Amino acid sequence: MNETLKLLHNHRSIRKFTREKLTKDEVRTIVEAGQRASTSSNVMAYSIIGVTDENIKKELRKVSGQPYVEKNGYLFVICADLSRIANLDSNGVQGNVKQNLESTEQFIVATVDGALVTQNMVIAAESLGFGACFLGSLRNDINRVDELLKLPAYVIPLFGLAVGHPNHEPDIKPRLPFEAVFHENTYDQAKHTHIEDYDRILSDYYQRRDSNLKDDNWSKQMLRKYNVPTRMDVAAYVQSKNMNRH
Amino acid sequence: MNETLKLLHNHRSIRKFTREKLTKDEVRTIVEAGQRASTSSNVMAYSIIGVTDENIKKELRKVSGQPYVEKNGYLFVICADLSRIANLDSNGVQGNVKQNLESTEQFIVATVDGALVTQNMVIAAESLGFGACFLGSLRNDINRVDELLKLPAYVIPLFGLAVGHPNHEPDIKPRLPFEAVFHENTYDQAKHTHIEDYDRILSDYYQRRDSNLKDDNWSKQMLRKYNVPTRMDVAAYVQSKNMNRH
Repeated sequence: MNETLKLLHNHRSIRKFTREKLTKDEVRTIVEAGQRASTSSNVMAYSIIGVTDENIKKELRKVSGQPYVEKNGYLFVICADLSRIANLDSNGVQGNVKQNLESTEQFIVATVDGALVTQNMVIAAESLGFGACFLGSLRNDINRVDELLKLPAYVIPLFGLAVGHPNHEPDIKPRLPFEAVFHENTYDQAKHTHIEDYDRILSDYYQRRDSNLKDDNWSKQMLRKYNVPTRMDVAAYVQSKNMNRH
Repeated sequence: MNETLKLLHNHRSIRKFTREKLTKDEVRTIVEAGQRASTSSNVMAYSIIGVTDENIKKELRKVSGQPYVEKNGYLFVICADLSRIANLDSNGVQGNVKQNLESTEQFIVATVDGALVTQNMVIAAESLGFGACFLGSLRNDINRVDELLKLPAYVIPLFGLAVGHPNHEPDIKPRLPFEAVFHENTYDQAKHTHIEDYDRILSDYYQRRDSNLKDDNWSKQMLRKYNVPTRMDVAAYVQSKNMNRH
């Protein structure tokens, strides 16, 4: 296995960091490596906000409920951003440009662009010895995040990314087996039977790992999770930013 | 610069491949490295379809209009997939589970999950000497792709990924400068002025690169592109699959 594959296989989300902050050079190195990711038609429909203001970090932590939103080496918030396109037309956003920017298609473009650049940032950070954790929890109150970061129209926060020197070494969590997620030529619903294998694997993992032992499996977790309505305000928020309207 | 950073910085989309096919082991290595990417709450809301059937590849090429959808070492189609969750409840999809699965929030979760796994696959493939190209062009006729791959409810194709041994060496395209995409603490619209720098950089690139010389820049390209209504059927398609409804 080459060094890069080893790095990918060694990934685990890091939620406890040392007090050491990233330098400006390190931040730039991570972002510039992120920017090399593919982007749809070279649109680069994302922006990255580095949050260094301790008050804003404290408020974002309140949104997420997670201490590592505040306590980390550096905090990024990655946004889907179509505002550069919106601002190109000096006549204002109208006609076909408006139609496109407000479409679900462009919402996919911007969401995917933001995710690709961030995954590259994670890999770049890990290659430099840092750990990282995605923070979808910022969508717990997406309007508040919008307000704190002063986002204009056509810009929405997708998630945060906490980066820093790891201060714990969590186990690597097993994933759904290859057989469960990989199909050949057409979608095969019989693949869902492999979830039973995964339930056993994950149950075993929870009963053997170093800390936070519990009796649980994937199916139970997912049913509990999806039985609670979550972030139902995201749709209206996104539309209020002129995105994903039709 | 470490090996992984070099790899990230050496990325360019590959659109011409040798005739050599990937082995089953290579496909599995790439997918399994992809699966190590972070995923929202361990949902793993994606599926990966490997397309080896030459007739299906031919039809997908017609959708995209791009020869490299057919001519490559291997073709993946990455799907956002919430159907595993939908199938967990033996009583059928109802109540809060239904509310969640149909939400824009879960559409974001599944789209991001699909993008993260794919970016890891790209990096894994490149670390093994392959080249790759994202194929958003499959959304040119997303209903046709759905039909060809026989996707059930709660599953939609996000994009394809062509992989293979590179048979050309395209230049590395300049990206928007760091200053244009990176903000500190709050969104700064003045950053948009850096687009002018990028227009000069990209114009220069187009006039100096090895092939396909042209007089163009980013602002002109984007205005042309966004002035044509594109993939306006994606929204209704996604909703027909019970996703992104509210």
